[in-house]
Amino acid sequence: MIERIAILGTGLLGTSVGLGLRAAGFQGKISGWNRSPEGAQAALGMGAIDSIVPDPIEAAREAQVVLLAVPIYATLDFMEQLSVVLGSEHLVTDVGSTKGQIAAAAARLFNTPERAAFLPGHPMAGKERGGAALADAALFRGAVWLFTDDPTARRSAHSADLAKGWREWVAAMGSKTLDLDPARHDELVAWVSHLPQFVATAMSALLEDEVGDAPELKDVGGRALREMTRLGASPYSMWRDIALTNTEAVQAALHALEQRLAHLRENLRTPELRDEFERANKFRRE
Amino acid sequence: MIERIAILGTGLLGTSVGLGLRAAGFQGKISGWNRSPEGAQAALGMGAIDSIVPDPIEAAREAQVVLLAVPIYATLDFMEQLSVVLGSEHLVTDVGSTKGQIAAAAARLFNTPERAAFLPGHPMAGKERGGAALADAALFRGAVWLFTDDPTARRSAHSADLAKGWREWVAAMGSKTLDLDPARHDELVAWVSHLPQFVATAMSALLEDEVGDAPELKDVGGRALREMTRLGASPYSMWRDIALTNTEAVQAALHALEQRLAHLRENLRTPELRDEFERANKFRRE
Repeated sequence: MIERIAILGTGLLGTSVGLGLRAAGFQGKISGWNRSPEGAQAALGMGAIDSIVPDPIEAAREAQVVLLAVPIYATLDFMEQLSVVLGSEHLVTDVGSTKGQIAAAAARLFNTPERAAFLPGHPMAGKERGGAALADAALFRGAVWLFTDDPTARRSAHSADLAKGWREWVAAMGSKTLDLDPARHDELVAWVSHLPQFVATAMSALLEDEVGDAPELKDVGGRALREMTRLGASPYSMWRDIALTNTEAVQAALHALEQRLAHLRENLRTPELRDEFERANKFRRE
Repeated sequence: MIERIAILGTGLLGTSVGLGLRAAGFQGKISGWNRSPEGAQAALGMGAIDSIVPDPIEAAREAQVVLLAVPIYATLDFMEQLSVVLGSEHLVTDVGSTKGQIAAAAARLFNTPERAAFLPGHPMAGKERGGAALADAALFRGAVWLFTDDPTARRSAHSADLAKGWREWVAAMGSKTLDLDPARHDELVAWVSHLPQFVATAMSALLEDEVGDAPELKDVGGRALREMTRLGASPYSMWRDIALTNTEAVQAALHALEQRLAHLRENLRTPELRDEFERANKFRRE
């Protein structure tokens, strides 16, 4: 039933969705827009989109489903603009990493019988470096795609069908979907996604100061060090918006880890260390 | 020139060395001992050793090169025992993760013209779970194998040749060797190896408390969470000895990270966050 999709933002995620849809058998049109024309050209060259539309609002108007695949504040800006030009024949969805502000904007701007529907989404997939060139049709295979939909949304039957159709394409791309309340979503991802990122950033920055002048020493750490600092390559441009829109939950998670590290540091020579290892072993048990 | 090697401890590392030596073309005898007979049988079954010697001292006596591949305190115990039964026709070497106490014991017990030589070694390779069953001939390929040899050692020409020969086999197994002072070794590995381990342990233990009761939520974190907590599966039995023999350097590294995390937490909404990301990006630059 979905025949025209517009992807606004053909970076790593947007381009991967285009490729993933094609790999899953989507036969309709996929138009694309990107802030830098090079990114849109790359997505076109890879076959993730079949046309470039220079004006993102125009691209959205022409589509049934609009996927916002840009940073969070850019998503919020597009929501303001699109809410006044789209109607009940449209669904807008997104891939933003925090959902509190986006869900609130959706309730304010979308989801009435006359307006477009907005389905807040968040695929738990990515890479430490962005850009269309790294896009992958299989990026979402085996991943969890979170939704924080509003059960009180009063949608037109048509836009409700589009939301249902989008969920089916997400499943067809190989993702398991999970529905969460937006506040619970933001608290959960602070623990399982944002904490690992900020720890990797802090540890990489610290190690740059400590051993960065001796590049041969980076090799010494081997796989453990490589894995624990891989996310150190993640761009500020993406994480700034996450830090700004999920500040309190991230602060709570970081503070808890600081206390946990202090506890471990004070107990390197006591049996408490065994308890921490056993608790960690339990987390990793299959 | 090396024709008889005894591997004391056929866990992950000892068994991988046996397999690695065979893969690199070693034609001599490799005998093995393990505290649990099952581990020795597993190594024998995999072809990592060609005989099991029930008495480790007897195995050492019969060999030219003795590889200690047991935890650090067990290594120190073996050093005491072997120093009085081996002579200048032997080389003892090890794979222990901290080198200060082992290098000091080597200076006290070995490395005179009448005694056996001791070459302290530390391959920067491993897995989060131990045991012969996970052993791999390629474990050391591309890894760095550290040595903290004593330049003032007064060795017999024969045992000095054995040490040179052992370094050649390490290179033949695909490792790059690097020589460090023992104190510098312990400080360096506190940053690039022990810090990542204890952070993964603390984060895994914390997450077990926070989301451990909802197993489906572990999936949400995806690859980033899996990588950042993989080492959470590491056994206390191995890390206890590291915590006890490198306490101060590990404490300093943990304390520095705690401060770094607090700095990041206090700057989630300031431009300082950009600086931390840029410094982290620099560490990960190829």
